Amino acid sequence: MSQKVVVIYSGGMDSFTVLHKALQEGNEVLALSFNYGQRHVKELELAANVCKQHGTPHKVVDITAINQLLSGSSLTDDIDIPEGHYEEESMKSTVVPNRNMILLSLAIGYAVSQEASAVYYGAHSGDHAIYPDCRPEFVRQMDVVSKMANYEPVAVHAPYLDVDKNAILADGLKMGLDYSQTWTCYNGRDKACGKCGACVERLEAFAANGVEDPIPYEA
Amino acid sequence: MSQKVVVIYSGGMDSFTVLHKALQEGNEVLALSFNYGQRHVKELELAANVCKQHGTPHKVVDITAINQLLSGSSLTDDIDIPEGHYEEESMKSTVVPNRNMILLSLAIGYAVSQEASAVYYGAHSGDHAIYPDCRPEFVRQMDVVSKMANYEPVAVHAPYLDVDKNAILADGLKMGLDYSQTWTCYNGRDKACGKCGACVERLEAFAANGVEDPIPYEA
Repeated sequence: MSQKVVVIYSGGMDSFTVLHKALQEGNEVLALSFNYGQRHVKELELAANVCKQHGTPHKVVDITAINQLLSGSSLTDDIDIPEGHYEEESMKSTVVPNRNMILLSLAIGYAVSQEASAVYYGAHSGDHAIYPDCRPEFVRQMDVVSKMANYEPVAVHAPYLDVDKNAILADGLKMGLDYSQTWTCYNGRDKACGKCGACVERLEAFAANGVEDPIPYEA
Repeated sequence: MSQKVVVIYSGGMDSFTVLHKALQEGNEVLALSFNYGQRHVKELELAANVCKQHGTPHKVVDITAINQLLSGSSLTDDIDIPEGHYEEESMKSTVVPNRNMILLSLAIGYAVSQEASAVYYGAHSGDHAIYPDCRPEFVRQMDVVSKMANYEPVAVHAPYLDVDKNAILADGLKMGLDYSQTWTCYNGRDKACGKCGACVERLEAFAANGVEDPIPYEA
């Protein structure tokens, strides 16, 4: 059923695929990106271009002011970005306190104000080990609480919740998506580092699908 | 049991009472206020003074940037503030989309970063009719989702959830609190208007307790 939905769209490959999935379902899509003081803005620039191509309204909200509340994560603080896999203990330093509840609550507020009936976001099973706020029970509870928090209920939907990044990419490739329009690397340099946790998982997903990643890498 | 807790403290009489209740329970309190572009900052100034008196750390976070997401409420937009009781239909224009989920999610993030184990806020039964995000089922569900969203669980606690504003004031008066250090009026003028929904409920609470409200009114 076609409906008006808000998609949390970071510009990375997961949310890029979610955006296209929501569009392909025939929904009226409102894209929402957050500027939280990322080390680079490449993701946001790519997101803006993609939305322009589709004629999809795209809102970027500056939430850098709330970083003072959430100290301790390497994505916005001056901590070294760890290398390796998400499963490793070191990746816990990339956990931003209560990140997804904050982003979802803002997206739900936006949905209410725009009379949209759902918020889509790109949680997937590969993040379950390290990020508690990507787990199925969290998504289910957010859906429950979201539906009771406002006069008009807003559903919380993570279409790839039960599959991993490889399957997301497989679905996107089947849709014919061009992943050169996405950015994943945690480091803020011109080319992707190929070593941070985000790059490693991205490269593995492309390898698993037998496809070459179209973005440039340093190594 | 004494613990470290975050209190969402607007500077109004309810959260002022919650703050003192949390202190009187022997907790280590971190006060958290939000600047969301209120028509006046009197509440925030009073909140800062009160925290200073107690030596309570007080964080004020500017979240005005998110107003662009949440259009349609008269508390921040240029809509006339309705007069009368909260129960009336017109008061619905004071409902900010998803307000309490947003503020709680930020406060929970702050609690995680400060290693606090609970967030206190001033929801009460008088708000149940108009504000879905002040109802017991909402608070219970936020507590559930909060405890699963992060490595260290944070409880959501509304100590006055089951009583009304009259009872909150009665408790505060029993604690010997000075309500001249609070502000409630929705209008941004020097004296309280005495007519907006917030003033009407405040004045009724004082009348119900047989005490004169110490703040100055226009009428």
